[in-house]
Amino acid sequence: MRVGVLTGGGDCPGLNAVIRAIVRKGVQEYGYDFTGFRDGWRGPLENATVRLDIPTVRGILPRGGTILGSSRTNPLKVADGIRRIKQTLAELEVDALITIGGEDTLGVAARLSDEHGVPCVGVPKTIDNDLSATDYTFGFDTAVGIATEAIDRLHTTAESHMRVLVVEVMGRHAGWIALHSGLAGGANVILIPEQRFDVEQVCAWVTSRFRASYAPIVVVAEGAMPKDGDMVLKDQSLDSFGHVRLSGVGEWLAKEIEKRTGKEARTTVLGHVQRGGTPSAFDRWLATRFGLHAIDCVRDRDFGRMVALRGTDIVRVPIADATARLKTVDPALYEEVGVFFG
Amino acid sequence: MRVGVLTGGGDCPGLNAVIRAIVRKGVQEYGYDFTGFRDGWRGPLENATVRLDIPTVRGILPRGGTILGSSRTNPLKVADGIRRIKQTLAELEVDALITIGGEDTLGVAARLSDEHGVPCVGVPKTIDNDLSATDYTFGFDTAVGIATEAIDRLHTTAESHMRVLVVEVMGRHAGWIALHSGLAGGANVILIPEQRFDVEQVCAWVTSRFRASYAPIVVVAEGAMPKDGDMVLKDQSLDSFGHVRLSGVGEWLAKEIEKRTGKEARTTVLGHVQRGGTPSAFDRWLATRFGLHAIDCVRDRDFGRMVALRGTDIVRVPIADATARLKTVDPALYEEVGVFFG
Amino acid sequence: MRVGVLTGGGDCPGLNAVIRAIVRKGVQEYGYDFTGFRDGWRGPLENATVRLDIPTVRGILPRGGTILGSSRTNPLKVADGIRRIKQTLAELEVDALITIGGEDTLGVAARLSDEHGVPCVGVPKTIDNDLSATDYTFGFDTAVGIATEAIDRLHTTAESHMRVLVVEVMGRHAGWIALHSGLAGGANVILIPEQRFDVEQVCAWVTSRFRASYAPIVVVAEGAMPKDGDMVLKDQSLDSFGHVRLSGVGEWLAKEIEKRTGKEARTTVLGHVQRGGTPSAFDRWLATRFGLHAIDCVRDRDFGRMVALRGTDIVRVPIADATARLKTVDPALYEEVGVFFG
Amino acid sequence: MRVGVLTGGGDCPGLNAVIRAIVRKGVQEYGYDFTGFRDGWRGPLENATVRLDIPTVRGILPRGGTILGSSRTNPLKVADGIRRIKQTLAELEVDALITIGGEDTLGVAARLSDEHGVPCVGVPKTIDNDLSATDYTFGFDTAVGIATEAIDRLHTTAESHMRVLVVEVMGRHAGWIALHSGLAGGANVILIPEQRFDVEQVCAWVTSRFRASYAPIVVVAEGAMPKDGDMVLKDQSLDSFGHVRLSGVGEWLAKEIEKRTGKEARTTVLGHVQRGGTPSAFDRWLATRFGLHAIDCVRDRDFGRMVALRGTDIVRVPIADATARLKTVDPALYEEVGVFFG
Repeated sequence: MRVGVLTGGGDCPGLNAVIRAIVRKGVQEYGYDFTGFRDGWRGPLENATVRLDIPTVRGILPRGGTILGSSRTNPLKVADGIRRIKQTLAELEVDALITIGGEDTLGVAARLSDEHGVPCVGVPKTIDNDLSATDYTFGFDTAVGIATEAIDRLHTTAESHMRVLVVEVMGRHAGWIALHSGLAGGANVILIPEQRFDVEQVCAWVTSRFRASYAPIVVVAEGAMPKDGDMVLKDQSLDSFGHVRLSGVGEWLAKEIEKRTGKEARTTVLGHVQRGGTPSAFDRWLATRFGLHAIDCVRDRDFGRMVALRGTDIVRVPIADATARLKTVDPALYEEVGVFFG
Repeated sequence: MRVGVLTGGGDCPGLNAVIRAIVRKGVQEYGYDFTGFRDGWRGPLENATVRLDIPTVRGILPRGGTILGSSRTNPLKVADGIRRIKQTLAELEVDALITIGGEDTLGVAARLSDEHGVPCVGVPKTIDNDLSATDYTFGFDTAVGIATEAIDRLHTTAESHMRVLVVEVMGRHAGWIALHSGLAGGANVILIPEQRFDVEQVCAWVTSRFRASYAPIVVVAEGAMPKDGDMVLKDQSLDSFGHVRLSGVGEWLAKEIEKRTGKEARTTVLGHVQRGGTPSAFDRWLATRFGLHAIDCVRDRDFGRMVALRGTDIVRVPIADATARLKTVDPALYEEVGVFFG
Repeated sequence: MRVGVLTGGGDCPGLNAVIRAIVRKGVQEYGYDFTGFRDGWRGPLENATVRLDIPTVRGILPRGGTILGSSRTNPLKVADGIRRIKQTLAELEVDALITIGGEDTLGVAARLSDEHGVPCVGVPKTIDNDLSATDYTFGFDTAVGIATEAIDRLHTTAESHMRVLVVEVMGRHAGWIALHSGLAGGANVILIPEQRFDVEQVCAWVTSRFRASYAPIVVVAEGAMPKDGDMVLKDQSLDSFGHVRLSGVGEWLAKEIEKRTGKEARTTVLGHVQRGGTPSAFDRWLATRFGLHAIDCVRDRDFGRMVALRGTDIVRVPIADATARLKTVDPALYEEVGVFFG
Repeated sequence: MRVGVLTGGGDCPGLNAVIRAIVRKGVQEYGYDFTGFRDGWRGPLENATVRLDIPTVRGILPRGGTILGSSRTNPLKVADGIRRIKQTLAELEVDALITIGGEDTLGVAARLSDEHGVPCVGVPKTIDNDLSATDYTFGFDTAVGIATEAIDRLHTTAESHMRVLVVEVMGRHAGWIALHSGLAGGANVILIPEQRFDVEQVCAWVTSRFRASYAPIVVVAEGAMPKDGDMVLKDQSLDSFGHVRLSGVGEWLAKEIEKRTGKEARTTVLGHVQRGGTPSAFDRWLATRFGLHAIDCVRDRDFGRMVALRGTDIVRVPIADATARLKTVDPALYEEVGVFFG
């Protein structure tokens, strides 16, 4: 039995932990051989491989990133992509393919598996935690931890200068990182993509916080949008490639707050630090268990399935379930957290 | 409506986050008044109270410990304990009591509620994560994080000197901290109270690790015991009070490994650092949500209930469910993790 | 004896440690009384004070920011500023003033002391470490630690996607944070304000790094400038107040690298997280010792002096020495570090 | 030119950073070849070597421990040791030897250099910071940081239970780690090997702290001793090898405090976590600069010299200077810090 492994999409702390668990159990318990594919779907498309065995996975558990490399290459958008992948797998005598990735990567895996008979197993990966069918994805806890530590730090600088500090965190379509880190960091306002925000309401919270002699922290997901939608019209400029470039919502909001409340406001955009570096203990645990269960799917020839977390159990669901719809923040949960606003 | 709050048993990161959430929501949304009881059950027993309102819970979210103090006082073992508690509650016109604690504290709350008609709501707390009826308890994630970071650090010193490093972590009756931190830290052996260990097997794993030119890390829960049970017979000494004092299992094991394998071994006992300091983001999230739901139980006059985590939801269960049996590590899960031993 | 204390300029981890040490020693050993002035020079200008005694400094050692508040108010630029300060000090019967601050704050203290006979003692503070006459200032070590951890994290995301990551750190006029964190974080290029950089050279280093199959990290101080100076001409836009707004050097550089090397590049601007939160152990040590020695200056009536670090000793120098010239990175040191570029 | 490198004694965060800097500069700037010796002096004694070049030092900057391994082997105590070392160096055509180590390792280097004409360069290494002739050694800052974080955590658990927490930190002969971490962690008592302590005085400080309604933290260096010296007589037991085994000073002191004050006391022995894991930014900076200057000593054929830190400069001193006397805590400094006791 030869098993291929690839990691697609944005990097995420815990990818290496998944890879290590797959290989450790696959080799030790089942005697499988492995082929690592380079840079997501580019690997099987271009027959770009990397050695994958016990020595190559030594010491990678605590390391962020992915030893296989990653890319956003989508074989469905590449001429003859599916055929080329099937050909590579055949040439390399790969009997099963474990794909670790998010919506796009798993979407391809679902198609390959369901429509083209390629024996795929999926492992869900998104730092934003917005994949359905699993309680959590690895990387999310690490990102929330980093954002929370940053918010902790920003409190003291906000208080010392009695300034508003706006913290822009990841989350294009779902506000999980904003919600968790904002709550954990004691933010006074949390804005998420799921609900358009009212700048006047934000300013009211900011003002009420100052009235209580504290300095407000506003946590905003990068995908959050104001109600009136005028953000996109302002502040656009051309970047050096001539593309339209929008300043982020954090910077925009800080300026609006300054203008409307007369208080100084500063923005911090956390950016890539949220997705790099060593995974948290929780993410190492989750990623490792995902890997152990993914290789068990292969052993059981249970293809077209994805591993998922339900409570404290790892379960198997159809890969397509993960990508059927985006897992967004429930309005009731957002309201629950709202008790801390202002 | 006046609500009493107390924290009992060993301290745990997240206690303050629970207290803050209870008070913030209770005051802001429901207009309740609060009475803080000092040092667990000692508070209502001795009418020892502390002010508890919005200003007193400001800034406590990231702080470990408990502003209410804690103790292991058990009113069931105190003459006339139940009557005295009822009297204090009556005198102070406390209409409901939120008890945050572990097996002992909640056991009293269940009795008070079920047998004596005292309107209690429970919030589960144990750093060991061994309470039934909830997927996780707050404090556990922080403890696992601290232990994992320590194991990460010990790897490099083990490798540099080609020594065995034995790390003793918390867990008297359940091996959750050992299992999670051992897995996350890449330990080569993990020993838990649920399964007596075979010293010869441990030494075989240690030796096999050295043969692969790596230095082994052995994570052992403080409550783990060898199969032959001879540990307790050795190494006992009298402490300065004349009590029998046993050296911990970690120290005992290191000596056994040295004796049987001829390799140098060192022990690190993590101790109280595992339960102190700022809670992790996850624990702040969980503790805060427990607090918000506990005060909702009060509002709903849903007494005799405890809040609990199920997947990503907070649910309500009878308080007695939490203490019915200890939540220990399932043998199947221990075996799953065993692929990394040796 | 009544001693006034103020903190001016940008906040910095360690300010509270200085204040605590001054008060603890001043009260316990010398029996002094204290007056805290609010928000830097605004305090004595407007007679805005805050209580300062043993209870108010309890627990502040590990806390970032300053319990006194800070501002950039400069009494030399305020009508009648000096006279108003002298009047406040006289009214409050303040016998000596300890000023904790950077170039501006200490510049005022030097003038007050040397020209107006106000008994001042200075404590140097700059997160950028660019004050002369002291080996290090507190806050710098914390900032370097935070930046280094961020760089550590960015390595894994750079490698996973084979991208350039540009990290913009603090340092308007001196490159100390860039130099220390860049070296400690294993950056492949470090750019500082002291030496204009050649974009072509940066791109050559970037390309050489990719050729060795690694992804480059470029650390750039916010005040670094390209040789040809064309940065300021590009990318400018108007902000919502109609002011010209320049994109930072980090963002500019990433675009240039993309354009010239054809490689993807991303920017992270660390911003305010570098100056917030709990001080490192070193900064707590240094800040505390500065505080202890500052109050000893008062006891010795050794005014017009500033405490400073020389090796492991705290010494006293004229306040004016600190502000005589900016302490910038020596070209020889920059060259020493250059062995790691590319 | 072929340069040998070895690391001796206990491991220390920063060793790999030294090695990397030596090799990077030696290869890139001077075109040298390198021989890594295994496990300190065992390497040249037994001709045990390891490859050392640019690829082998890739990625080791942030890693604790030493890729060369270490041991306490002392060639002066080995029959014919010096001759065997000279023979190995001759056989391998090693022209210069860089020895990274503490008192013992550098003592041998001094003898080899001064008495036997072996061209040695020394790099000082001791986590305890007790080597003369240098302001600081790398590893110390990391150890202090870890101990400080532990003390921070223990405060909250001490307060919650109103217990004494005794923290035993490293430092057999010098109290630097205790002094720095105790001060930075806000300890209420700090005990160091340089000054025998009076248990009654310790108990008085403990009691006074409780009287102020706070729980005391006592930081004690492992080598600290009580005045009456009776510690060694109590609590001794035989370990499983039949050797006399003394309980550590921390445990002893906690029991004495309990006995004398009637307050509960707990001990945490930090142990090996203090010397493992990734070095702090400061230690990476210092270790790297030591490495760069050590290879410059080789280039300058300036043998018998050790690199050292003086203020912010790296200087060269005779190797023998480092080992001439132990650098202990000055009584005046200890007294300065004493203002925070009690």
